This record gives sequence, structure tokens and C-alpha cells, in this order.
Amino acid sequence: MTSTLPATPLAPSESALDATFSPLHNATFLQACLRHATPYTPLWLMRQAGRYLPEYRASRAKAGSFMGLATNPDYATEVTLQPLERFPLDAAILFSDILTVPDAMGLGLSFAQGEGPRFANPVRDEAAVAQLKVPDMDKLRYVFDAVSSIRKALTQADGKGRVPLIGFSGSPWTLACYMVEGAGSDDYRLVKTMLYARPDLMHRILAVNADSVAAYLNAQIDAGAQAVMVFDSWGGVLADSAFQTFSLAYTARVLAQLKRHGPQGQVIPRIVFTKGGGLWLKDMETLDCDVLGLDWTVNLSTARAAVGGETNGPGKALQGNIDPNVLFAPPVHIATEVARVLDSFGAPHQGPGTGPTHIFNLGHGINQHTPPEHVSALVEAVHWHSRQMRL
Amino acid sequence: MTSTLPATPLAPSESALDATFSPLHNATFLQACLRHATPYTPLWLMRQAGRYLPEYRASRAKAGSFMGLATNPDYATEVTLQPLERFPLDAAILFSDILTVPDAMGLGLSFAQGEGPRFANPVRDEAAVAQLKVPDMDKLRYVFDAVSSIRKALTQADGKGRVPLIGFSGSPWTLACYMVEGAGSDDYRLVKTMLYARPDLMHRILAVNADSVAAYLNAQIDAGAQAVMVFDSWGGVLADSAFQTFSLAYTARVLAQLKRHGPQGQVIPRIVFTKGGGLWLKDMETLDCDVLGLDWTVNLSTARAAVGGETNGPGKALQGNIDPNVLFAPPVHIATEVARVLDSFGAPHQGPGTGPTHIFNLGHGINQHTPPEHVSALVEAVHWHSRQMRL
Repeated sequence: MTSTLPATPLAPSESALDATFSPLHNATFLQACLRHATPYTPLWLMRQAGRYLPEYRASRAKAGSFMGLATNPDYATEVTLQPLERFPLDAAILFSDILTVPDAMGLGLSFAQGEGPRFANPVRDEAAVAQLKVPDMDKLRYVFDAVSSIRKALTQADGKGRVPLIGFSGSPWTLACYMVEGAGSDDYRLVKTMLYARPDLMHRILAVNADSVAAYLNAQIDAGAQAVMVFDSWGGVLADSAFQTFSLAYTARVLAQLKRHGPQGQVIPRIVFTKGGGLWLKDMETLDCDVLGLDWTVNLSTARAAVGGETNGPGKALQGNIDPNVLFAPPVHIATEVARVLDSFGAPHQGPGTGPTHIFNLGHGINQHTPPEHVSALVEAVHWHSRQMRL
Repeated sequence: MTSTLPATPLAPSESALDATFSPLHNATFLQACLRHATPYTPLWLMRQAGRYLPEYRASRAKAGSFMGLATNPDYATEVTLQPLERFPLDAAILFSDILTVPDAMGLGLSFAQGEGPRFANPVRDEAAVAQLKVPDMDKLRYVFDAVSSIRKALTQADGKGRVPLIGFSGSPWTLACYMVEGAGSDDYRLVKTMLYARPDLMHRILAVNADSVAAYLNAQIDAGAQAVMVFDSWGGVLADSAFQTFSLAYTARVLAQLKRHGPQGQVIPRIVFTKGGGLWLKDMETLDCDVLGLDWTVNLSTARAAVGGETNGPGKALQGNIDPNVLFAPPVHIATEVARVLDSFGAPHQGPGTGPTHIFNLGHGINQHTPPEHVSALVEAVHWHSRQMRL
């Protein structure tokens, strides 16, 4: 971090906001990202296009594999839109994986059946680190093609989009975890051994990752992504002070390189989500982003008081944070928990100008065993209860 | 929680403190627990008797299995003392497992090779919950015999103990996780489904667990445990508000039933450690315990300001919190990180009366791949640097 002062982005001009909201039938998600009032609390769900949907499983069977889906823009478009056909969600998110970037660096990604991701060439020594560089973005063309294809599929007969499309990437630190461990991990022993024993190597990996992530997200913006999100899924495994040095600083390096505007001059809101990062909200307030994602351990009222920006000035919109396991309870209990989460944020900003806003989401990706009809109950409860809160 | 005010335990009498500290050659750990000054920062390590020690692996091979070690008081004594022979640690901790209590309830504990614990009879429906009751403590006699045997082995020729012995238990919620899941879990789906769908069943399990844990710890105190610790290893997976309702309240129920004094009238300090609980420190301040354990995500300076008790009044001693993965770095880096953690707590209380104190520990159990000579470097660095801080 070069500064510990809260980031104060320039307020977007009226014409930029018009270019952002007007091309959409439902701009509630982007409005809430930029801390503008909305008639209800918009929501989307992390991993909303996924295995809990039978139609997703059918697409995956056709494609043959997870990467078969992700690398084919037609399939990626098909599965991205599936949850929107079922549920009145307020945003679409690109169907892809955070590990496409290290794969393009030559690490050799594969998904063994039921085992999660694996890299054939993990980065574990000085020689491997020295070879790392920002990949040729042409190797990720399939991702940008998917973005364009999804945008097209979201466009209605009148030329307006149904809902905005979110692009995303893993954070530099989260990518580094997988690159060094070579797979998921319980204890992060290998990546933390490098961090503590050879911080110079870790900084070099993170610098390459940050520049790669920035180029990757900028290309998604050029292709049509209307917001971008950085998933710092493993930031929360770091010790205090290591988080600031090895995760937050490199997320800041990504943000510093991101385009502020898309091809039509629209504002591109930026979301940062550090799972397990609730203790570091005041550190994250310094990030030059619009929205902070929160997991279910965080009290939304406390978070709003800390970083929500109660007045018409800087502050972050908050996104989250119901426990995805709530979706295994009967609908009546789901509605109760939804109301609890919405009420914990409290009354959202209404009227002109900007103020505290909330985007409803899970605190982590949806579980593959979730009954889809329970997702319907959740979506309905969020829209209904959040409208009541504005009466 | 019946109260949101910080717990204000009665200050122990001079004679009780004398009965606590005098029977020990090294009482620094107990002194720091009770927020009395010590000449250096005492330390012990979670899972200090364990697989990273070759002598432990030899004992386990003799015993045939993990439970073969834990259920035999001679073996349990042998392995409890092993780390003390190598390192000048300031406390011993009973060698056992948190799952002995549900095993005594009839759940059928086993440890499959390389797979972690498993229960033959998990508790997943109303009938299984209805059958649960506080187990006959006679079934846990082997644990209390181990406590007595270890105390005897720690006693020197002059009748004084080398260091105090810590007894422990899992928290009601953490035990419930294993009892419902039947094994470790990535997503806690089964136990959280019960929590959200059938909170009545979950409350019943937790009530039985709390009363069982209290009886279990009281029997350890009777057998000679000089401090007790509640491991809420999975409290941090709960959502805000669920943590307070389903974990904290039942830890409080345990504490309310614990004996304050051992057989010789000595004070028995109580430690509560919630991994991932850093966001709930102000809630945990209300617990009637002496020490709060902290994982590595918590900033010790912030925690001290929140709950450390800067004056001669209520407040918690703090225990923790270095990342165990630091032990994979070379000794020179270990010393740097040790100093960082000690310095983040800041100057400890000195002189008469009580004030903020720190007990050094890891933020989680030691990794089985840790080089023992790195543990030596850590212990030496803690003792050396913390003495310098008091000059």
C-alpha cells in the first residue's frame, strides 16, 4: 500500500452514469455498486451457474468436462444464462474459472474427476519463478469471446440488456496459492513456506500475477464486461500483516491498472471480495474499488458503520453475505434468514445522490447439492423484503 | 448469553494465588493466565506432543494407533512429556483428543489411517438426538488417569512441578460438528442444515454437549489439571449471529458449571480459543474465562485494546498467534516473525497487581512436517526477545 487514506474515486459524470445505466432494462446491480438508490436490494449468487442446476449438468455432459464448457464461448454463454432463465437475478456473471490465467502462463491446468483443479507444472523454485511472465492475452481469447457472446445473448429486441454482465479474476495472492501448491490445500504449507522463507520469490510471482490480472480484466472490459470482481478467495488464510503485504498490496496494484470506463464510456464498477477478510475492512477501505464483498462471519451493520460511507461521499457498497448452507433449510426458514441479513444492513440509501447500499449475495459459492427451488425462495424473499424496507 | 456485560470474575485471594503458583518451579504460564507479571512471555504450542517429533512417532508405532496412545495413561504420559524434554516450554498439555467425549456417548470413534477421525454412529435425526445424554464419566477414566499420571511425572524430587498441566475439551459446537457430520468436513453442510432447518435439535445436542464438557473438565480438574482450555475449533465457520447463538452461548454454559478451584484450593485458569473468531472478540469478552486464544489473522495490538484490560481490572490475557507455517522458514526468519508477534502485543504488564499479559503460542496446531530444530529456534526467540522487551 502506498497510502493508508481511504480511496476517493472521482465521482462519475452524469453522462458517464447515463451510459452505464441506460443501456439496461435492469440496472439495479450497477446502481447499487455505485451507491445509487434502487427500488429493492439487487442480488446475484456466487457460482449461480453451476452443478446445482440440472440444465448445467446436462450442458457439462455435452461438453465432456468443466474446461470443455469454459473454453467454448457457446457453452459458456449457455450456462451463464441458465440461472437467469429460472430466477429473476439482477446480474449475470461470466462462466469461467479463476485458474485460466495461470493456465495461460503454461502451468497446465486440469480438472480430475471429483478432485478439483490441478497444475502439471507448479511454481516451486527460483527457476520456475524466473520463467513466469504476463501471458499473451490471445491465449485467453476464448474468455473474451465468451464475454462478447454473453453480452449479445443478454441483449433484448430493443437493443437493451436484461441485466449487466460481471467479469472476474482471482486475486494475485489466490492465484499464487494454486500456482505454488499445484492444487487446493488444507494448510497452504508450500505457498506459505515460500512466503516466509523466500519473500523475494513470492513478491515476484505476485507482481507478475497482478499485471496479468489487470490485463485480463481490461480485456474483459473491452469485450463488454459491465463490472469486474476480484476474488481473493484465500486472502483470509494469511496472518495479519502478511495479508496487507502479500494480498492487499497486489490487489491494489491490479486496481491501479484497470480501465475506469468501458467502450461506451460507461463506468465499470469494481468489486473486491476477500473471504475471511472481515478483520481487515479498514485496510480494504483504502482500495480504489466501489464494492467490498463480505462473507457470513461479518456483521453488516458493523461493516456499514466502518466503511459504508453514511454521507454523500466516499464509502463502499457492501455485497453479501448469507451462509449458502441456509439454502438447505425449508423456504420459511430461508425467508427468515434473508430478512435477518437485509435488516442487519439496515435502511439503504434512498433518494438522489449517493449513500450506503447493499447488494445481496451469498457469503461464498452456492453448494452443488442446493435444491433449485430453495434458490427461488431466496430470490423472492430478497426482493420482497427489501421492497418492504423501502416503504 | 444471559448478559452482554464483560465478565468480572472475583479477584482470587492471596492464599489461592499462593496455592496456584508456589507448587511449581515454573509458574509463568499460570501467572500470565491470571494477568500477573512474568520475567518473560511464557509459551507452549498447540499439538506440541505430535507427529513432528520422531520420538512421538516411535511411541505411536509401539501403541499401534492414535487411540492406543490416548487411551493408555502410560503412553499418554510418555508423549505428553516428550516436547518438554526437547524444548524449555512453559506448560504441558494433556495428550488426548477432543472426540473422546462423543466417543463415550456411544458414537463409535475410529481413526482410519491417514483419514482423520470418523464416527460409526453420527447423530443426524430426531431419534439419534433424543438418545444423546451426558456420558458416564467412568468411560473417560483413562483420561483422568492420564492427567494424574502426567502430574506425577512432572513432579520433581522436591515435590514441586516443573510446569503446569493444561486439561482441555472441544467446545459444544465443535463436538456437534463432528457428531453430525460423522467426520471432518469442508462445508459443514449436514450440521448447518440441522442448525438452520431444525434449530430445536441443534439446541438439544449443544445442551447435552455443554453439560458433558463441563463434567469432563471438572473431572480433569479433580485429577490434577492446573488450567483448562476449550477448543472451539469450528466456531469460525458460523455466520454472525449463529456464532453467538450456537457456539458462544454453549461455551458460556460450560464455563458456568466449571469448578473455580482445584483440590489444593488453587485457581484454575480457563482459556477459550475460537479459531476464526477474531471478529467476535467483544462478544467473547463477556465469557467468564481468563484467557482468549487468537489465531494469526488477529492483530494483537487491536485485540489488546479491545479486551486486554489496560488497567488493574477485568480483561483477558491473550494467547497466540503466530502462523505455524512460519516454522518452515529458516531460523533467522522465524526469529523475525516471533519478534513481530511479540511486538504487536507490545509491552506486557510489569510490577504488582494485574494488567495486560500475553502467552505466546501458535495460531493453530503445529504441522506434522515441522522440523523440530525450528521449534527450538522459535522457543529460544520467544524467551530471548520477550526478556529484552522487559529491560
